[in-house]
Amino acid sequence: MLNYRNGLADMPSYDVVERPWEIKINANECNMSLPPLVEERVMNRLGTVAFNRYPNEQYDDLRDQIARNFSMQRENVLIGSGSSEIIEKLFYCFGGSPEAKIVYPQPSFSMYKIYAKAAEATGVPVDLDPEDYSLDIDKFIKTVNDEKATLAVICNPNNPTGNAFTVEEIEKIAKNIECAFLVDEAYMEFYGQTAVRLLAKYPNMIIARTFSKAYGLASCRVGYMLADAKIVEMIDKSYMPYHMNVLSLVTADICYQMRQEFVPHIQIMISERKRMQEELKKLPGVKVFPSETNFILVHYDKAQELNALFESKGIGVRHFGDAPGLKDCLRISMGRREENDIWYSYFKAFTEGRA
Amino acid sequence: MLNYRNGLADMPSYDVVERPWEIKINANECNMSLPPLVEERVMNRLGTVAFNRYPNEQYDDLRDQIARNFSMQRENVLIGSGSSEIIEKLFYCFGGSPEAKIVYPQPSFSMYKIYAKAAEATGVPVDLDPEDYSLDIDKFIKTVNDEKATLAVICNPNNPTGNAFTVEEIEKIAKNIECAFLVDEAYMEFYGQTAVRLLAKYPNMIIARTFSKAYGLASCRVGYMLADAKIVEMIDKSYMPYHMNVLSLVTADICYQMRQEFVPHIQIMISERKRMQEELKKLPGVKVFPSETNFILVHYDKAQELNALFESKGIGVRHFGDAPGLKDCLRISMGRREENDIWYSYFKAFTEGRA
Repeated sequence: MLNYRNGLADMPSYDVVERPWEIKINANECNMSLPPLVEERVMNRLGTVAFNRYPNEQYDDLRDQIARNFSMQRENVLIGSGSSEIIEKLFYCFGGSPEAKIVYPQPSFSMYKIYAKAAEATGVPVDLDPEDYSLDIDKFIKTVNDEKATLAVICNPNNPTGNAFTVEEIEKIAKNIECAFLVDEAYMEFYGQTAVRLLAKYPNMIIARTFSKAYGLASCRVGYMLADAKIVEMIDKSYMPYHMNVLSLVTADICYQMRQEFVPHIQIMISERKRMQEELKKLPGVKVFPSETNFILVHYDKAQELNALFESKGIGVRHFGDAPGLKDCLRISMGRREENDIWYSYFKAFTEGRA
Repeated sequence: MLNYRNGLADMPSYDVVERPWEIKINANECNMSLPPLVEERVMNRLGTVAFNRYPNEQYDDLRDQIARNFSMQRENVLIGSGSSEIIEKLFYCFGGSPEAKIVYPQPSFSMYKIYAKAAEATGVPVDLDPEDYSLDIDKFIKTVNDEKATLAVICNPNNPTGNAFTVEEIEKIAKNIECAFLVDEAYMEFYGQTAVRLLAKYPNMIIARTFSKAYGLASCRVGYMLADAKIVEMIDKSYMPYHMNVLSLVTADICYQMRQEFVPHIQIMISERKRMQEELKKLPGVKVFPSETNFILVHYDKAQELNALFESKGIGVRHFGDAPGLKDCLRISMGRREENDIWYSYFKAFTEGRA
């Protein structure tokens, strides 16, 4: 008999292998390759990697570059395997017992619940308004304080609902809670109203960012967090040496150096989102939620049947089953224009009873 | 006040940034670049990566390939960020409380102690013979059983001592303990007497391997473990989705496909090790330990001064300070022939009072 850690057996196993979708719009990936100039420089840089050497200065090089962009110091930046691993580690570091409460909105990033469980902490979801997914800021603050939470989390803009909170709302939370406060800004490049400037004022604040969405580097698993140096130092203790690989670090480094090249990509994704929001609003029975991201959440009574139709056509969108607050919802990541036209034509035909 | 997880503050922070050594022989890296044919195919493969997509089938492709090589199934293979992360996760999964005892030899891989602490478990070192670093197998078995250990670990060949255990010795341990039994085979390609065939007989056995040493892919952070499918399934629960990046996975995949190309590299490292062992034996006051790896451990009364000389010449070797069982020892990774001649000439001069 093997004696595993308590609770491990109850953790889910993940099978993330996807069907080979013709149109893959289920994971909020950027649906474009790297800008050609960037790809050329990335490949040149990869060609200079000393494959046989352990990671060394590449980690701090990327930290330095990110720090400079935000007028911060290297000590304020931590790099992880996607912002998802950074969030996982934050939950771990502020978890460790059922008394450790981690408060987050619901619906939001589905992994919060799982990270809380993995951290042996207690996840405390705060329901968003079922009509428009707005957050009752006072209720959120009260929950954090009543529960004596160790960590409060806001995803801004919120995934999978798409709506965003203002910097004033974020600041109101920061001002009225004392625990660690993570703002998950995975989709911030599509919105722009970052809470970064609040970091100087609220040393309990942490911001997580990713290269997986706007920068189109989901393959590389690179994200970062910005916070007070003392927080970075503590979270870093949960990381073992050499936790980042060189290939991903140098790829992210080049992309970050050339981030102006991604602006047109981001603009295309935003304009496609706006276009498709308008198109979707024309469809009867379809509720289109506001979005400040690269995806659109819709509510549609026949979401499940529509999802089955999409699947039959090789189109992968995100259907949430019976997840709280997301009944009959579909989340559609913005593809390229021609891809968007295709899924929309099936959607339209379905609403017209033609599919 | 931020409320961190109990014990986190006591964890060490790691600063792994190295000096720019002229001759870097302190981390048991392969001191040669990838074989040219392999590097060409790796770069071609990297050029086909869809950077914007999350990892998908690349993880199982590598598992399948490794499984085939050992006549095992995909379900027997787990991939991690270096074998070090796999070991970290194993300690985590068999840890979780001070009552969880993890037994390993001492001196051995220095991270075992730290992984045990990070896993909130109790590390139980079993001292190797101070003269020749041999392991009293009966004592090891007795310790595992007396402590009711959750995990027993053997590094074979052992790092940093260099000596190896026979498959019969490994089997004797497997036969006489009931807890999980990890054999860390990071340096196995230099020795060859793997315990893989024992996996079928002892379902509590786990073997960890790495691409960082013989395959010269330390930059990529890829390792794997082989075990009973039930163990793999449980350890996998400690991993979140998308924990491996695509660039490292495809690079390891190509290298593993072309592993015959690495045989000459491995032979060069072994023959250099043999050559340098003989050379070192000529030096007065230097005790040269047997090695089945790509490094040599020596005992020398003036190890600290010699290390300072090496440092002043831009040569980085591993000095262990006052680590248990390693007083006045240096571990020297095999560099290229010309590099080995250089550090040896300084070593020789030092023993002759000329440096």
